[in-house]
Amino acid sequence: MTSGKPFPVNAWYPAAWGNEVDRTLKARTICEQEIVLFRRTDGAVAALEDACWHRLLPLSMGRLAGDQVVCGYHGLVFNASGRCTHMPAQQTINPSACVRAYPVVEKHRLVWVWPGDPALAKEALVPDFHWNDGAEWKGEGGTFYSLKCDWRLVVDNLMDLTHETYVHSDSIGHDAILDTPFEVTHAENTATMTRWMIDIDPPPFWAKQLGRPGKVDRWQIVTFQAPAVVIGDVGVAPAATGAPQGDRSHGVNGAFLAAIAPETETSCHYFWNFVRTFRTDDEDLSRALQRAHVNDGKGVYDQDHVVLEAQQRAINRHPRQPFYNLNIDAGALWARRIIDRMLEQERGPQGSVQAAE
Amino acid sequence: MTSGKPFPVNAWYPAAWGNEVDRTLKARTICEQEIVLFRRTDGAVAALEDACWHRLLPLSMGRLAGDQVVCGYHGLVFNASGRCTHMPAQQTINPSACVRAYPVVEKHRLVWVWPGDPALAKEALVPDFHWNDGAEWKGEGGTFYSLKCDWRLVVDNLMDLTHETYVHSDSIGHDAILDTPFEVTHAENTATMTRWMIDIDPPPFWAKQLGRPGKVDRWQIVTFQAPAVVIGDVGVAPAATGAPQGDRSHGVNGAFLAAIAPETETSCHYFWNFVRTFRTDDEDLSRALQRAHVNDGKGVYDQDHVVLEAQQRAINRHPRQPFYNLNIDAGALWARRIIDRMLEQERGPQGSVQAAE
Amino acid sequence: MTSGKPFPVNAWYPAAWGNEVDRTLKARTICEQEIVLFRRTDGAVAALEDACWHRLLPLSMGRLAGDQVVCGYHGLVFNASGRCTHMPAQQTINPSACVRAYPVVEKHRLVWVWPGDPALAKEALVPDFHWNDGAEWKGEGGTFYSLKCDWRLVVDNLMDLTHETYVHSDSIGHDAILDTPFEVTHAENTATMTRWMIDIDPPPFWAKQLGRPGKVDRWQIVTFQAPAVVIGDVGVAPAATGAPQGDRSHGVNGAFLAAIAPETETSCHYFWNFVRTFRTDDEDLSRALQRAHVNDGKGVYDQDHVVLEAQQRAINRHPRQPFYNLNIDAGALWARRIIDRMLEQERGPQGSVQAAE
Repeated sequence: MTSGKPFPVNAWYPAAWGNEVDRTLKARTICEQEIVLFRRTDGAVAALEDACWHRLLPLSMGRLAGDQVVCGYHGLVFNASGRCTHMPAQQTINPSACVRAYPVVEKHRLVWVWPGDPALAKEALVPDFHWNDGAEWKGEGGTFYSLKCDWRLVVDNLMDLTHETYVHSDSIGHDAILDTPFEVTHAENTATMTRWMIDIDPPPFWAKQLGRPGKVDRWQIVTFQAPAVVIGDVGVAPAATGAPQGDRSHGVNGAFLAAIAPETETSCHYFWNFVRTFRTDDEDLSRALQRAHVNDGKGVYDQDHVVLEAQQRAINRHPRQPFYNLNIDAGALWARRIIDRMLEQERGPQGSVQAAE
Repeated sequence: MTSGKPFPVNAWYPAAWGNEVDRTLKARTICEQEIVLFRRTDGAVAALEDACWHRLLPLSMGRLAGDQVVCGYHGLVFNASGRCTHMPAQQTINPSACVRAYPVVEKHRLVWVWPGDPALAKEALVPDFHWNDGAEWKGEGGTFYSLKCDWRLVVDNLMDLTHETYVHSDSIGHDAILDTPFEVTHAENTATMTRWMIDIDPPPFWAKQLGRPGKVDRWQIVTFQAPAVVIGDVGVAPAATGAPQGDRSHGVNGAFLAAIAPETETSCHYFWNFVRTFRTDDEDLSRALQRAHVNDGKGVYDQDHVVLEAQQRAINRHPRQPFYNLNIDAGALWARRIIDRMLEQERGPQGSVQAAE
Repeated sequence: MTSGKPFPVNAWYPAAWGNEVDRTLKARTICEQEIVLFRRTDGAVAALEDACWHRLLPLSMGRLAGDQVVCGYHGLVFNASGRCTHMPAQQTINPSACVRAYPVVEKHRLVWVWPGDPALAKEALVPDFHWNDGAEWKGEGGTFYSLKCDWRLVVDNLMDLTHETYVHSDSIGHDAILDTPFEVTHAENTATMTRWMIDIDPPPFWAKQLGRPGKVDRWQIVTFQAPAVVIGDVGVAPAATGAPQGDRSHGVNGAFLAAIAPETETSCHYFWNFVRTFRTDDEDLSRALQRAHVNDGKGVYDQDHVVLEAQQRAINRHPRQPFYNLNIDAGALWARRIIDRMLEQERGPQGSVQAAE
């Protein structure tokens, strides 16, 4: 189902925010597959191949009729399972006439699609993204659609927060990040980078959130869930109040949430949020934090955006150069290893693709 | 002269409207060949290769001197036969110095060029496009230059009018088109799709042209002339006045005219007109019909334009997928068969190209 | 160090005007190599590979700290020799961590870099461009960055001034250029085209500079210095005052200066100046001459710019067509032969590349 592409296809990828999908036809490309999304009359989301069986016109250029899609060129109709139910000017319908239907799950306020073998698509495999549910944790996120970089560069970026010191030196960067050792652990499908900075001066952002002077203990616990989710548990607590030992009750806790979908080999969709458990009713704070991340080029994620796309352009110009790695890359390296293992499994022992076509 | 390109080259293709070609140099690409067109002092049109023999600068960037073209870089002069008649700073002219001259005929208000073997270019082979002469039939047409699709997609579009029901549902579409069987006939170089809709309510456009209430008989007789002309004889007459039997005198008759030239493998020039034999002196009607077809994105051909370019983009993304066909495609399929036969003939029995280089 | 590219790499190429390079990081691509330029604290210019050893981000997106460059992603630091002197969050520095440092010389108001084997880069090989020093000869030049043509087309253009008659017919063109024989001489690394037009009416530009009526002797002595410099010694003197014999004291003398750097196979940077020994204190004249050459599309070099880019586009469309040559191309042909010999030398007797990687 894939071959040589830099993304596993037997995985759930975020395709849209739930509130983006309504009774219109929305086109989105995931893993180089064009998909049309729509919400059925029963409220569930459907995801079909976005190319008419007949002459390939994107179905997203047609219209929705009940739970069926009518092609905008010759009027072929496809139901939410992808089967053709009407052909113009003929009674008999070719039984092989269908477009592909993608497994789809709406969970944690995102719509997830499975671009690979449908038989392998289990809802239980949807990544844990519960921080985004809007319950305990609050925040307002966003999406970078068609970010012009290999999706794995976003994973690299998030798994090593050292870059904050250089890319985000005016907000969340801090020399303590550099000075403090970190630890990386990993399981079959996850890798976690943990860094505790004990008894430090807080950086401007966190000093403001904590709202009281003095030294803090700061934590960054970043977990990768293969292949394309990263959760960063971050925060500060007044020094010596027990946070490293498990009592964060005196501190402020946030989490950055990233769910990434490969669009092509060199572009991706990056769904993000920054949520918190403090001042959860403060909608002004939610909006301020959202603007701190993405704000017309001035937010911290805007800064990453510039770096990531420049890095991809450089890779395009130096296609054979391997990456060199530093100690700081340990978290990203484990994420890459897990991704590579998924890719190898999909390609099979002979290098062929195992998944059903 | 071609190899593997999706267009025959031994054919007349429209390159310009006659009134576009004057005493200036006009560049146009036909079948991936850059051509410069100009009108000679005797009124005839000349068509030369648009690249100087010396250093390839487009001759269309030079200037016309009498019936000769002066290159804008070093002043080489080429006559209307393509022979170099002057070289800068030297008396002797390399006898092989020439650019290609293309057979060209001005007929039916269009300039036709023959991009293939000049020895095969017979004026008698110019397609019958007399409806465009401005005599019996009247209308004002236009051109889509560099329409971003394989020229054959335009042929497909015109040979199956079922699409009117979906693409042009607000003007000329009609469920009767779907409900009525049609007949396809073919000869060596033509294919004709004939559909008679008997005793139906006319669609809005035709009701207005007929100007009287009541049921009508409606006809669509669409003829393909290989490789790139389609003529659609269309109209309505009051029901039971004998139109199907040959008496159209009580009705209104129009014709859509299409002459298409491949520009590249994935772009074409589409010269069109819509002419009629009713109210032929009504210039307001001519302009209204012109606007009904192309009007800043709102005309019926504008709607086709959007669909055709989207279809081409989808083909580019799915290069190996074959087209599936429906009953409605019978006319287009015959046109495609005739085009394919022309391509095979040009490539010769061994797959090589027969035409002289 | 190159293979099959249409430019020698063991040569000095202009990368910037001296006054462009300051205490900021400037990115420039020379011979398909991305380079970051900056001025060190001691005033010398440094040129490094513009891609971080670690993850390829252009170093030009980072910042200068003293004489070192700090990468804008993870803070690796490189000194002006390209050696990494700091890695984030680790004490030990991988001794192989470095980026390439390019030989660089600032001379004749230009910054020259050597993209090939550093061991071969001798300052004595910097082309003679002393007319640009601002001493005896005065003028104000400019640069076409990323001119979209193979750099050799610029050499061709300058080595044959016949084109002035056609491309610049309204200013410096003159039929006498066509009527007058010229002579081409060559040495190992230079080729010179000499044309004397004796007792002619001066073209408008030169009549104005001379400022007195009457016939003139006009000279054009254009010298190519391999691989990418062309100097044109041009001027007029009143007829019969001895200029051809060596006494130019009654005339006016200018020189066009061209230093060209390949950027890619089909683009280049073209540094130009037009200097003179007459009215050298007249800054208005300097600006007027600058505008005569480049003036928002209306200068003579703007006219060349249009022709050169059109020629490249034509070459791209006719990749296999060889150039045909005329007598007027004798100077350009010698320049091309010298360039070809340099290319062959770099590729070595077996077609392999001799220079160190």
